[in-house]
Amino acid sequence: MHNVVLLAAPDSALAQALAVRNLPDIHLQVYAPAAVPEEVLAEAEVIVGAPDHIVPLVRGAQRLRWVQSTWAGVTPLLQNGEPPYQLTALKAVFGDVMSEYVLGWLLALERRVLVHSRSKRWLTGRESSVRGKRMGIMGTGSIGTVVAQRANAFGIECVGLNRDGRTVSGFERCYATSDRLSFATGLDYLVGLMPHTPDTDALVDAVLLAQLAPTAIFINAGRANAVSHGDLVSALEDGRLRAAVLDVLPDEPLSSSDPLWSVENLHITSHTAAPTADAMIVDVFADNYQRYVSGQPLAHLVDFARGY
Amino acid sequence: MHNVVLLAAPDSALAQALAVRNLPDIHLQVYAPAAVPEEVLAEAEVIVGAPDHIVPLVRGAQRLRWVQSTWAGVTPLLQNGEPPYQLTALKAVFGDVMSEYVLGWLLALERRVLVHSRSKRWLTGRESSVRGKRMGIMGTGSIGTVVAQRANAFGIECVGLNRDGRTVSGFERCYATSDRLSFATGLDYLVGLMPHTPDTDALVDAVLLAQLAPTAIFINAGRANAVSHGDLVSALEDGRLRAAVLDVLPDEPLSSSDPLWSVENLHITSHTAAPTADAMIVDVFADNYQRYVSGQPLAHLVDFARGY
Repeated sequence: MHNVVLLAAPDSALAQALAVRNLPDIHLQVYAPAAVPEEVLAEAEVIVGAPDHIVPLVRGAQRLRWVQSTWAGVTPLLQNGEPPYQLTALKAVFGDVMSEYVLGWLLALERRVLVHSRSKRWLTGRESSVRGKRMGIMGTGSIGTVVAQRANAFGIECVGLNRDGRTVSGFERCYATSDRLSFATGLDYLVGLMPHTPDTDALVDAVLLAQLAPTAIFINAGRANAVSHGDLVSALEDGRLRAAVLDVLPDEPLSSSDPLWSVENLHITSHTAAPTADAMIVDVFADNYQRYVSGQPLAHLVDFARGY
Repeated sequence: MHNVVLLAAPDSALAQALAVRNLPDIHLQVYAPAAVPEEVLAEAEVIVGAPDHIVPLVRGAQRLRWVQSTWAGVTPLLQNGEPPYQLTALKAVFGDVMSEYVLGWLLALERRVLVHSRSKRWLTGRESSVRGKRMGIMGTGSIGTVVAQRANAFGIECVGLNRDGRTVSGFERCYATSDRLSFATGLDYLVGLMPHTPDTDALVDAVLLAQLAPTAIFINAGRANAVSHGDLVSALEDGRLRAAVLDVLPDEPLSSSDPLWSVENLHITSHTAAPTADAMIVDVFADNYQRYVSGQPLAHLVDFARGY
């Protein structure tokens, strides 16, 4: 039997969804993060939970061999170097919901969903279209790749930005982060989907924004550190960008008194682009658990050297 | 040489776009619909234009062999039975823009684009998703098929409604119009994309709406005759439908004083779902013209017996 500790309220939907999966040879124990008994922790072989809940527990979990994060971002667990356990992130499940978010916002803006929805009269004027537009996606991992595929289906051409400019399927061309200005040149849409690493700090600044097409739309649904928000607001206020959509902000939740709320053509969502559904967590964990018990390599292993 | 008359302003973008195509053996003459000289009409072999402009001209066009409509709907030309010329409609070009419209509105509603866009504060609450939803598409022709493909890419299951229930690729199952209530049962999304024929009158009525899932969304971007608007408004007012989006209305433009503008959760667009771009008309005509001069069958031929 494998001792698995799930950090969740025992009566939560997540706990119930995992219990009814009846995974083989599992001894599943469910505790709220602050209520795990020492002796349970000491015998835990696997912990499933949010990274910031797991951080204070790892010291007491001497037999820990695998942590399955219930988040995509695992930064809190990366602070103390490579640990003696394997860490897997919640990945590969976000591509679909993220595609809905990115295409949903772009289509709403191009097809004037917001304008029509507010209008109380018959509107004339031409509709625009996403077809034939050029999208630059910052981040070509499991999420960016699915967004590119979905965008391709709508006739959008995609280029990618990643660490070393390596080729990735679904992208016409990929650029290295060091070549970010060539990447940005003439883009109609810029989409931020990068993880939080020091390499991605302020990639989107005034210089990069100036390379975009004059009516470009910027969507950030990666991490807030990738954006210089002052430069972004200036570009919007000067009309050099048509619109921006931010799902991630430096301080969340964004205070109701924050001036960002009143910047014209800036749309703010509440870190809701890729919500974590319980079913996704259970699917990813169950798949990885089967790999774990059969000795196969785990999926979505975090590389501590890269930081994601 | 083939005498082709284009009904458009001689200095219009459409006239210029067609002229620069330099199609082979074409004698292209451009006239505003009311200004075609009798002798030009008498020698016209091909007319390109809007059906309602062409109707008064066909009697004087004794050598007419082919009419290329610049609209998808050709109802005005169907009134007098089968004519001595071939009639082709503007088809196959609308699938992509229609997919943008349908998916754009569904994603905007599911992913709360309208709500987030209006909000000036951080919102909690779960996002919904289009994934795993069931869409019923009324009309499984060139437009409906592309919408189904695009919906499938987002994990939406599609069923279709057509005259005889014939199988169509991209649809899990198709139902005959006579079996419309089975078709509608449990649908999360109902999308109207049918042409205007007597067979489609009021297909969407109170009985059909009652079959949908309790939080269903209805989009009509086909023809207005398919909908009983009184029944639709009742369903919205009683909360039996989550939302409806209408791109086509019985009287267009819809008067600013029409009570439909103030029905809650009813979104009205201005027959803008599938705008006709000049480039589309030129592409379709040029392709068909090549077929015409080489003696191949024309694409998108209207079947007068079926009425589309």
